[in-house]
Amino acid sequence: MIQPLNPTNAPAKKPATKRKPAKSKILRNVTKPFPNSQKIHIEATGSDIRVAMREITQSPTRDFQGQLMQNPPLRVYDTSGPYTDPAVKIDIRAGLQPLRAEWIDERRDTETYSGREVQPRDNGYLTAGHVEFASQRETKGQLQPFPGLKRAPRRSVPGGNVSQMHYARKGIITPEMEYIATRETLGRQQNSGKFAQTDLRHQHPGHAFGARLASRPIITPEFVREEVATGRAIIPANVNHPESEPMIIGRNFRVKINANIGNSAVASSIEEEVEKMTWAIRWGADTVMDLSTGKNIHETREWIIRNSPVPIGTVPIYQALEKVGGRAEELTWDLYRDTLIEQAEQGVDYFTIHAGVLLRYVPMTARRMCGIVSRGGSILAKWCLSHHQENFLYTHFDEICEIMRAYDVSFSLGDGLRPGAGADANDEAQLAELATLGELTQKAWKHDCQVMIEGPGHVPMQLIQENMELELKQCAEAPFYTLGPLTTDIAPGYDHITSAIGAAMIGWYGCAMLCYVTPKEHLGLPNKDDVREGVIAYKIAAHAADLAKGFPGASERDNALSKARFEFRWEDQFNLGLDPERARSFHDETLPQEGAKSAHFCSMCGPHFCSMKITEDVRKYAAEKGIAEQEALTAGLHEKSKEFAEKGNDVYIAS
Amino acid sequence: MIQPLNPTNAPAKKPATKRKPAKSKILRNVTKPFPNSQKIHIEATGSDIRVAMREITQSPTRDFQGQLMQNPPLRVYDTSGPYTDPAVKIDIRAGLQPLRAEWIDERRDTETYSGREVQPRDNGYLTAGHVEFASQRETKGQLQPFPGLKRAPRRSVPGGNVSQMHYARKGIITPEMEYIATRETLGRQQNSGKFAQTDLRHQHPGHAFGARLASRPIITPEFVREEVATGRAIIPANVNHPESEPMIIGRNFRVKINANIGNSAVASSIEEEVEKMTWAIRWGADTVMDLSTGKNIHETREWIIRNSPVPIGTVPIYQALEKVGGRAEELTWDLYRDTLIEQAEQGVDYFTIHAGVLLRYVPMTARRMCGIVSRGGSILAKWCLSHHQENFLYTHFDEICEIMRAYDVSFSLGDGLRPGAGADANDEAQLAELATLGELTQKAWKHDCQVMIEGPGHVPMQLIQENMELELKQCAEAPFYTLGPLTTDIAPGYDHITSAIGAAMIGWYGCAMLCYVTPKEHLGLPNKDDVREGVIAYKIAAHAADLAKGFPGASERDNALSKARFEFRWEDQFNLGLDPERARSFHDETLPQEGAKSAHFCSMCGPHFCSMKITEDVRKYAAEKGIAEQEALTAGLHEKSKEFAEKGNDVYIAS
Repeated sequence: MIQPLNPTNAPAKKPATKRKPAKSKILRNVTKPFPNSQKIHIEATGSDIRVAMREITQSPTRDFQGQLMQNPPLRVYDTSGPYTDPAVKIDIRAGLQPLRAEWIDERRDTETYSGREVQPRDNGYLTAGHVEFASQRETKGQLQPFPGLKRAPRRSVPGGNVSQMHYARKGIITPEMEYIATRETLGRQQNSGKFAQTDLRHQHPGHAFGARLASRPIITPEFVREEVATGRAIIPANVNHPESEPMIIGRNFRVKINANIGNSAVASSIEEEVEKMTWAIRWGADTVMDLSTGKNIHETREWIIRNSPVPIGTVPIYQALEKVGGRAEELTWDLYRDTLIEQAEQGVDYFTIHAGVLLRYVPMTARRMCGIVSRGGSILAKWCLSHHQENFLYTHFDEICEIMRAYDVSFSLGDGLRPGAGADANDEAQLAELATLGELTQKAWKHDCQVMIEGPGHVPMQLIQENMELELKQCAEAPFYTLGPLTTDIAPGYDHITSAIGAAMIGWYGCAMLCYVTPKEHLGLPNKDDVREGVIAYKIAAHAADLAKGFPGASERDNALSKARFEFRWEDQFNLGLDPERARSFHDETLPQEGAKSAHFCSMCGPHFCSMKITEDVRKYAAEKGIAEQEALTAGLHEKSKEFAEKGNDVYIAS
Repeated sequence: MIQPLNPTNAPAKKPATKRKPAKSKILRNVTKPFPNSQKIHIEATGSDIRVAMREITQSPTRDFQGQLMQNPPLRVYDTSGPYTDPAVKIDIRAGLQPLRAEWIDERRDTETYSGREVQPRDNGYLTAGHVEFASQRETKGQLQPFPGLKRAPRRSVPGGNVSQMHYARKGIITPEMEYIATRETLGRQQNSGKFAQTDLRHQHPGHAFGARLASRPIITPEFVREEVATGRAIIPANVNHPESEPMIIGRNFRVKINANIGNSAVASSIEEEVEKMTWAIRWGADTVMDLSTGKNIHETREWIIRNSPVPIGTVPIYQALEKVGGRAEELTWDLYRDTLIEQAEQGVDYFTIHAGVLLRYVPMTARRMCGIVSRGGSILAKWCLSHHQENFLYTHFDEICEIMRAYDVSFSLGDGLRPGAGADANDEAQLAELATLGELTQKAWKHDCQVMIEGPGHVPMQLIQENMELELKQCAEAPFYTLGPLTTDIAPGYDHITSAIGAAMIGWYGCAMLCYVTPKEHLGLPNKDDVREGVIAYKIAAHAADLAKGFPGASERDNALSKARFEFRWEDQFNLGLDPERARSFHDETLPQEGAKSAHFCSMCGPHFCSMKITEDVRKYAAEKGIAEQEALTAGLHEKSKEFAEKGNDVYIAS
């Protein structure tokens, strides 16, 4: 008979606070807390700021004397926002509470104003009549205007600058910076000097970028300020998106990931639009880019931002293009400028701006395997060729900076000429654009605008480090934000894997944020499952990079999970992982009985033999004999071996 | 209206030879040729040896004048054996044709003999009565003895040596070596000097192991011989497995992958047992390890080997342990020796032998996070502790070598003390064992036995290169064969991804074969889907490594696929990929109409706008005006831009 040796390894009791039932199945799915997890709030150093994180409860280890030894709960970085907090009532029609509103107010450097009026074309309609006609036709699932409290938009007072970089350079530590210092360290910086110490085996001292990483960074609010002041990190935090929980993108912090979402071709319900974002952050997206095109983009964006606890990025040229009916050559600076303001007023936290696609670089792509594959890059290439004029984003860059700093929208300088195939990696066009992005970084920094740099794409492994090195050099260490890169082009349907390889490596080399790739890349639009696959693949890549960089405390979760695995605490093994649901369901396919989850074996070797069991036996033997482990193991094994044999060697659990 | 601009991009006609309908659905699934693919046979240099490979037919590119330009068929390395050859009649009850039988005969250094009699305990039964009883109880799906022609086993003449290394060291180029030279180069070595030239951008000259790779290897039969003679590569090729298609494992060749399979706990049908192997090789497994335990292992193995075109590996201690009822301490050298001969006579091509688990190393694991996780390692650790004697595989190593060389079974020196968690990576126990594996390598080489070295396991990224370096140094460059490694422990359910990252990297650094990990790792036994996921993830890793190493011709498939992608040849994009079925089904989820597969857009951007289209337009414009591309692009774009505007800028396909 198989004995359930660890009967206490059962799911912990549910928290006493019961959440009110969510209104729909969709919301129920994204608001369900992870098993044995609870939302906790830790006070930031010397302030009353409460920083949200997740804590996973573990069951105790039962030692060989039957004693229970507690395993401490594990804190993890949490991107899911209030959705997984049973204490918060979620109402997507009202939006999230504006966490940062008071902080922004207290800085007294912004003003509210009446703002730009929403026009029919913002949502893809030519006239107000079209809007009405469309809304009459749509009976079900029609996308309504966001009904929640409409705040008047906010911007810096005239001539002002409300960017986090601006504050940082003036020596000011903002509440956002305090929040981040506590969030990155999971609130343990203060309690234990140990946290700041990296396991030296997990630091790679000889590594070019390992060396350039702040050596064993102690992530204090002051350290955060410094990194933002130098431009090595950004805090995307539009003053019109006070609902966001502060986060940082920079290579001396945890590697972040972004998930792209887009509206559906056919009008979908509000909940479905909001769900795409909440689903992505549930699995771990640190930021979300809304790449919607077509109808209702303005309203879709409003719904998303009002309900998003993570920074939202966009590519404003996509909407601008919609406004001119898809004809790139009809784009104008005025139209584009108006779109920037439209989106800045809504609260978009970073804009992808392809200001480095210069007229003279376009021809460099003609002999490529895959030409220009960036949508924004193509739009601008077409515009440049049509007008034979320099890219208007480049020529108007200073004016763009003025907008960015008035709302604190961060630049994500787009790589319009990124390679679309391994064969095109690190070529003339890509590197020429990168140099221009470096020049623009300096320009933006003169305005104290926050900047990150977008990167490839498709890069075979041996060229990835060069990519990272060139970015740091050309762009004065501004954070790098890459798509993948895909390390081979031969696996359509599996590009989350071809690219997770490249993403992990470039993250280790110093990339600050990784834009996810789903299994549908190159083939179609991702569905919910694809988003989950993509986000998890990228959480893996980012975390593998954190481990390799020696980020303080990164190995804690690995160690907790490994210990649970070794001790056959199956529930804990599931719950400590990135996707508890899947781990549990995979286990249950083979051994669905509840007893199997507390059994001291796994289905690979069965109850008769288990390699982990042997090691347990070695330790157990030493413990039973009351001999210190080290002694038992080094003082010659002969004596012990004899006793072991006499006692009856078979210490397996007989079935 | 969307015009199907490339109507010729349709599936190629099916080959004229119709295959006879396979007898079961299972066999139909694994014998179906890949779409637009055919089996071809290329003659090896200066010999009549016919080397099997796959050729993927492409549709032509239609240029802007409507001219069709042919795209050459692409040859790919093919592990699927005769199963995907419609000209071959598959009968798993007869087994595959013995491709190598004549070659072995012609060497005149082996003899047939009566061989060991199969005993009840070989299949997990105590007596003949038990076997009879069991076979009476099993009515359906009962595992029958292999009915095909029973060849008498073959071994070297007394005192002889039939290992490929032995021949290589005597300067003999075997047919196996000739086959491999043609297989690795896809038969193009002979026709084109170009093939031997690596694209220099894709070689990484500064890289420690890039540098140690034979610089731009020209893979001739003589080169293959040399690599085998030095021990840098092995050709697993038991004289009793003449059905296998020769393949090589070494870091100056394509990176290989292994898939593990095991029999089911409950007796399954013969076809199901054989299917596990054929399914794995269909997706690209270069070797298969049969890790069966429990009942019927002898018969299962017989069925698998007789039907396998790829080398089969085993861990003989697993079967030996079954023979003593799972009691490790009852294992004896005689019993183990008998098992080696049993399996060598059947034709197993490589044995995992954990001869490096020394008594004095066992205690080093006691303080580990996860102790000993290798099943073989645990068995031997337990044996050593129970008897307080040195590992009998170590003390009898020379006798093992004598068996290995008599059948040409290759050593896969097992890493019984590999880390089971990132926290245990590269620790004292692992490295102590590695040094012993190096010592055993030298011993084996004295017998001209072929050797590869097994490796981890769980290793964070920054320690992977050190792992590879130590292996090459300690084991005198014997090929490394690693499990993963997993780069983080936090994603149960996704360990094919956590490990594909590590596998790609170590493959680049010089690892010769990668043992796959499926999504079920740590959780349960893989099903068919898991095997496919695992094999594809590892094909990606191996191919990414080939690209990064600059293996000659490796980028050909990437380039063909990228070109097809750029030219919207959807069918070709699917067919050139690792998994045409999945690529097609993902595409069809969004745009199922047949027309969409020849349309010049993809679902990501829709018919209105496509970034790839823009580049096409740039090129098209130049071509239409009869201007050489370079000229059009460098001679100043103003004039062209004017004409472009006059012609009507919108060159999109209007919907």
